[in-house]
Amino acid sequence: MTQTTLMKECQNGIVGETIKAVAEAEKIDPEKLCSLVAKGLVTIPKNANRDTLPTGIGKFMRTKINANIGTSRDYIDAEDEISKAKIAVQYGAGAIMDLSTGGDLDAIRKQILSEISVPVGTVPLYDAAATAPMVVEMTADDMFNAVRRHAEQGVDFVTVHAGINQNTVDKLMKAGRITDVVSRGGSFTVAWMSHNDAENPFYAEFDYLLEIAQEYDVTLSLGDGMRPGCIHDAADAPMFEEILVLGELVKRSREAFVQTFVEGPGHVPLDKIEMSVKFMKETCHDAPLYLLGPIVTDIAPGFDHITSAIGGSVAGAAGTDFLCMVSPSEHLALPTADDIKVGMQVAQIAAHATDLVKEGVRDRAKERDDAMGFARKNLDWEMQYSLAIDPEHARAVREARSSGSDTEACSMCGDLCAMKIVERELEKGRQKAAIKKNDL
Amino acid sequence: MTQTTLMKECQNGIVGETIKAVAEAEKIDPEKLCSLVAKGLVTIPKNANRDTLPTGIGKFMRTKINANIGTSRDYIDAEDEISKAKIAVQYGAGAIMDLSTGGDLDAIRKQILSEISVPVGTVPLYDAAATAPMVVEMTADDMFNAVRRHAEQGVDFVTVHAGINQNTVDKLMKAGRITDVVSRGGSFTVAWMSHNDAENPFYAEFDYLLEIAQEYDVTLSLGDGMRPGCIHDAADAPMFEEILVLGELVKRSREAFVQTFVEGPGHVPLDKIEMSVKFMKETCHDAPLYLLGPIVTDIAPGFDHITSAIGGSVAGAAGTDFLCMVSPSEHLALPTADDIKVGMQVAQIAAHATDLVKEGVRDRAKERDDAMGFARKNLDWEMQYSLAIDPEHARAVREARSSGSDTEACSMCGDLCAMKIVERELEKGRQKAAIKKNDL
Repeated sequence: MTQTTLMKECQNGIVGETIKAVAEAEKIDPEKLCSLVAKGLVTIPKNANRDTLPTGIGKFMRTKINANIGTSRDYIDAEDEISKAKIAVQYGAGAIMDLSTGGDLDAIRKQILSEISVPVGTVPLYDAAATAPMVVEMTADDMFNAVRRHAEQGVDFVTVHAGINQNTVDKLMKAGRITDVVSRGGSFTVAWMSHNDAENPFYAEFDYLLEIAQEYDVTLSLGDGMRPGCIHDAADAPMFEEILVLGELVKRSREAFVQTFVEGPGHVPLDKIEMSVKFMKETCHDAPLYLLGPIVTDIAPGFDHITSAIGGSVAGAAGTDFLCMVSPSEHLALPTADDIKVGMQVAQIAAHATDLVKEGVRDRAKERDDAMGFARKNLDWEMQYSLAIDPEHARAVREARSSGSDTEACSMCGDLCAMKIVERELEKGRQKAAIKKNDL
Repeated sequence: MTQTTLMKECQNGIVGETIKAVAEAEKIDPEKLCSLVAKGLVTIPKNANRDTLPTGIGKFMRTKINANIGTSRDYIDAEDEISKAKIAVQYGAGAIMDLSTGGDLDAIRKQILSEISVPVGTVPLYDAAATAPMVVEMTADDMFNAVRRHAEQGVDFVTVHAGINQNTVDKLMKAGRITDVVSRGGSFTVAWMSHNDAENPFYAEFDYLLEIAQEYDVTLSLGDGMRPGCIHDAADAPMFEEILVLGELVKRSREAFVQTFVEGPGHVPLDKIEMSVKFMKETCHDAPLYLLGPIVTDIAPGFDHITSAIGGSVAGAAGTDFLCMVSPSEHLALPTADDIKVGMQVAQIAAHATDLVKEGVRDRAKERDDAMGFARKNLDWEMQYSLAIDPEHARAVREARSSGSDTEACSMCGDLCAMKIVERELEKGRQKAAIKKNDL
């Protein structure tokens, strides 16, 4: 374990190229960023073997979005998944996770690593499980070897469900959940532990994981295998127990100079999101948080990009740093390319809404909204389009129903436009006031 | 002023048909509902002249959604607007507002009142303004006559921008807003006051408004003419000043046995929504709150059904009772029928997410989510579709990419389905535990 890591460099006060690049992108002082990375408050996933375009995740960083792509056993079209990853990056993804389980997994992963510039994450356990004859027949070696293989190949961050142990499983058995375990990695781990009557290898031998991570400077995404899969199961003992364990693992990772972020729920009702996020920040020592959702109701399959944007915004405002794009097909099917585009646009809205209230970021984020406010006041439609999340879409909506009698206003109000009517009169009022003042 | 009103009846402890119908729909004790209406904590808009299917809005009531429809000067197709109203009701609208400004306004309104069963609201000021040669040339009589005409015709609730007065306008002039006034009724009012150098008639002669409202038992929707039109302008002095005035008007309305709800913003960043809603509830004496949005960022024209679902959910969790559907065309164009459908579906998600955390409502709301959780655990797809916001849509998404090898699971995970893997193993574990127990 002689390899240096970004975190170790930062602890030694070395401001390298990666720090400089992220500092510039985030408009933050490089020394300050260096200190945040040193403490583990900002994570910049970047494998030592890969020339990743670095992304900063955490305190004072803009809210980032990850997009999941990947083949399944029934849909093995690597090109299709690569093209989805590219669409996700085009629409603002700051990271891509390859969750492939079907086809030549090594080949797909290598292709993604070579064609995508942003950080790439994987769940090595999927690889180990998909390769084994049965999930429960993996060996502990299979699991660690998958991590090492991904790390060697240049993967920037790996999800490891290391927070699941016998204690978490005990709590799960007593919890009275409806959907038990919905995290795929969590289900593999729990099934493996139950079948083999053994402790979770990633928990039992976490130091070995840290060795691999340190060797390649791979970031650990500490997975939430106990994340609730429905509103009923939200914010219960197994979830919190796992988070407490993750808090310990964050500390051990930092001691080994390995960067981390912590994954979070899941399906959570509106009134438990802020508490859950603050609990995670508190018990995980302010590690950057990475949330899937949270989804605020179970009843909207086909619209879970929206249930997730709602929960993601609330979670973002409470301190979440990294959002996982949820596609409109979530809970129903593997996403199409168009699902990825729409999912990313909606996730961008949640991320930007978060940035508008995030310390150290809000002033920058607000500039775009203020420009939109001025463009609206001036009825400057071209400027409005250029500032919009999707300029082409905004233009198409308006032009399909553009007003005949008044090209400045829109078809909603026509000549009864609030902006025009009030400005005309307020301007007169301001002039009158100015004249009076001059008269005095 | 001899006409009795629902509020007066309730204060006299009379549990009439309207109260019984709403109590049954809301699964609440009729006596309790009667007392809530008596205090103004629940509003049931229902014109004495109209056989409205009543909707309860406020404390212990499910979160309701209003949909705005109406012609503009450039798009005068009454049938089209009626059909949009019907689509909105089909997709869950608990009220419809007719905001028409083009064509034969009386005829359109009468047709809506006769063809729509849920409560219908209007903004009589639009009518007065659209009929006058110039907005600023309306007379005060025109304004009150429009209210009376709508009330006679059976309109259940009218928005009146009675909270704008010289003091609010003074605060507006000093506020340094980017978009000044974006409420259409607010802009007409401010322009009228400025042009005529006179107090807002609806404020100055609020008692006369109350007389009309009492005569027909019309509910007053106390409009927020100063609602912010961009993130920059959110939560500032003119808005709060107007709300303080609305609080006074709520009291005066209750004294006249006239039901009210209070309208709210607008464009509000995530960190100011809860405070704004709680301020409104506090200063408006817990009157039911009716919010347009709030929209949590300005940069998403074409997606404002989503920015609004985010804000509406946060506002709902903070105490908002009545959400206004915002269509995907908001800020760009008059909505199409499909915009209304999508806007309503997304608003339904926000309303249901709110109901999951609303006192007196959450247990009922949660039943549907729990049933979905069980359906997911059981991989019962037909049940999942039947519980979904849009069953046909959910089915179409899954069936377009349904898994070949395993019809139970979906194309996301195929045979690596978390639900199946973990259940199999947990079941074995439970059996082992049961055997051990029997051995003892």
